[in-house]
Amino acid sequence: MGLIVQKFGGSSVRDAARLKNVAEIITETYAKGNSVVAVVSAQGDTTDELIEKAAELNEMPSKREMDMLLSAGEQMSSALLAITIEKLGYPVISLTGWQAGFVTSSAHSTARIRRIDTERVQNELSKKNIVIVAGFQGVNRYDDITTLGRGGSDTSAVALAAALKADRCQIFTDVDGIYVADPRKVKNAKKLEEISYDEMMEIATLGAQVLLNRSVEMAKKYNVEIEVLSSLERKPGTIVREVAKVEKMLIKGVTKDSNIARISIIGVQDKPGMAHRIFSSLAAKHINVDIILQSIGREGTKDVSFTVSKGDKEATMEILNDILTSLKAKEVVCDENISKVSVVGAGIQSNPGVAARMFEALSEANINIQMIATSEIKISVIINEQEADRAVSVVYQQFCD
Amino acid sequence: MGLIVQKFGGSSVRDAARLKNVAEIITETYAKGNSVVAVVSAQGDTTDELIEKAAELNEMPSKREMDMLLSAGEQMSSALLAITIEKLGYPVISLTGWQAGFVTSSAHSTARIRRIDTERVQNELSKKNIVIVAGFQGVNRYDDITTLGRGGSDTSAVALAAALKADRCQIFTDVDGIYVADPRKVKNAKKLEEISYDEMMEIATLGAQVLLNRSVEMAKKYNVEIEVLSSLERKPGTIVREVAKVEKMLIKGVTKDSNIARISIIGVQDKPGMAHRIFSSLAAKHINVDIILQSIGREGTKDVSFTVSKGDKEATMEILNDILTSLKAKEVVCDENISKVSVVGAGIQSNPGVAARMFEALSEANINIQMIATSEIKISVIINEQEADRAVSVVYQQFCD
Repeated sequence: MGLIVQKFGGSSVRDAARLKNVAEIITETYAKGNSVVAVVSAQGDTTDELIEKAAELNEMPSKREMDMLLSAGEQMSSALLAITIEKLGYPVISLTGWQAGFVTSSAHSTARIRRIDTERVQNELSKKNIVIVAGFQGVNRYDDITTLGRGGSDTSAVALAAALKADRCQIFTDVDGIYVADPRKVKNAKKLEEISYDEMMEIATLGAQVLLNRSVEMAKKYNVEIEVLSSLERKPGTIVREVAKVEKMLIKGVTKDSNIARISIIGVQDKPGMAHRIFSSLAAKHINVDIILQSIGREGTKDVSFTVSKGDKEATMEILNDILTSLKAKEVVCDENISKVSVVGAGIQSNPGVAARMFEALSEANINIQMIATSEIKISVIINEQEADRAVSVVYQQFCD
Repeated sequence: MGLIVQKFGGSSVRDAARLKNVAEIITETYAKGNSVVAVVSAQGDTTDELIEKAAELNEMPSKREMDMLLSAGEQMSSALLAITIEKLGYPVISLTGWQAGFVTSSAHSTARIRRIDTERVQNELSKKNIVIVAGFQGVNRYDDITTLGRGGSDTSAVALAAALKADRCQIFTDVDGIYVADPRKVKNAKKLEEISYDEMMEIATLGAQVLLNRSVEMAKKYNVEIEVLSSLERKPGTIVREVAKVEKMLIKGVTKDSNIARISIIGVQDKPGMAHRIFSSLAAKHINVDIILQSIGREGTKDVSFTVSKGDKEATMEILNDILTSLKAKEVVCDENISKVSVVGAGIQSNPGVAARMFEALSEANINIQMIATSEIKISVIINEQEADRAVSVVYQQFCD
């Protein structure tokens, strides 16, 4: 018995049948003696439909009016969920973002939660009401409705759990937890019982889309225990918390990211300041660089390679071609036919055998490694894109089978 | 140049083409140097669709949650209209009911406006913004969203015009003004340039559905000048104001109401208190009685007839049969095959010729009059339902052709 915040995404409430399913999950939790606050997204395709409707009228609508428009989506799904719960005979009330006290920054469409005035929610909980809260939205200090941007309802739920000091924040999704590798790609991929915030963030960065880093960062900051679980099956999911139980398995994730391009600058003059010149030019244009590899200088020149996301490729090439002469470099080349395959797990770096075993697995599978990068809790390799799925499989088998 | 409040109903904003049309009306008014506040209803069938969606989940949803659900409809249409106006290059901002300061009673689904805190709207107007306000909705003192019930957006517009001391409140509809008789029924029916509040209310009571009495009452109370006009044509409509210009035409409306039934109690004992006993019994059950006719007593009994709306017929018959013995009456009979045809216009009563000319027209058309009732500004007759449309035509021709 405690205070549970539950979050249901758009597909979990997309139609009458799904709403009934969610109403049952919520009332079962309540019937066990818990206080329950449920944060919901807009139904199914509501948000996309509204965006389309607006685009028909104006290809560049203001973000302020888009927030006004889109926030109606969660208001409707919240009311519909409350109506469904009323039918089951439980006391319930739905609240918009502003009614639930979400005060945000003024940045429409990407607002940050500044504070949550929980008085109303607390008051409803003390009346034994199940409280439904419209996710993804709040109000800024001018009383204008704002939205939190991508993954916003997760952020709403975690922030509300933190503000209410909830015992747990359950994020209901289409998958039943966090897997070591993508279960659609790797047969018998293992589901984790627990994972730490840092590991979860590495996995998210590396391509797993279950929870966005913004929510995990917030959960870590306020020490909110998250459970990722399925809204379609009644079984435990994966717990995300600060100090995860020590498990036998060291590796928490084998991931793949193909949305990257490798850029190489050939024949850069081998003298101090070159790297600074290259990467400060990119930073000035807000281009994020991931793995960097620099060849050892010989004959007075060196080659500098790094990866960027595919979307930044054009801009990067343009910037580098502009500064090519000042670098006294020969040319810039680009390869989009690559993938990053990574293993993630706390203690990887203090466990030298992991890297060796990963490389061994790739070598045995005859997969060539183009670049290597390591951190405290991960090892990434850049390989040919065509070999990426096979690489995930052999690495997974090496560690987890 | 002045401050104009414009109201657009659901069909006026039902799709992209209609939204663009409304955006043009608003910006044309603004471009002439006026300050403009536009109150909008939900698009087309949005409200009905949401009601249906809720009914699928729960046949008896709470009114509180229905208000939460339905109010999203006007929020969306307001934002979409603002987005359409942005496209035309004008400064605009949309506001929900609570943002626009509508504070209402707590009666969900039939809330009354208690006050409007116009600070935000005034502030936006002073910034030269066109202000779009979601009609039909407000917030009660618990910060819960309420809706105003039928015709609510008209009420929102008139109340806001009163609070802002607007120069005019324009109600845009599918018709281009108030007609003396239903233009679909009477060929060449005349459109009125002006009509007084009282006349407008009589016409509304008698079946014309252009403006509900609630809005007209409020307009009268706060002396708000209303213009009823078409959103599809650019031409002047009908002005509703306190002292209408004296026009040649005395008659402002010829109307028909077929949603009535005549109830007759035959052989009521002819002694004091009988009428009181009958009508207090009906009043106790909230049954509104319209025209009452009592035959002159003979042989110690009298007959009492009156009209009620068809919906109240069953209940009325039940009540009367219960008290029949105590009235010492013979029986209660009912006739649903009747219509009320009325002429409305200020000064009718002080102009005895009007009644005579009306009866003459009906007589020449061989239409039998069953009951007659008159007031300061109207004369109504009860006739056979099959003859009602013909009666409207001949009466119209008598006065207006």
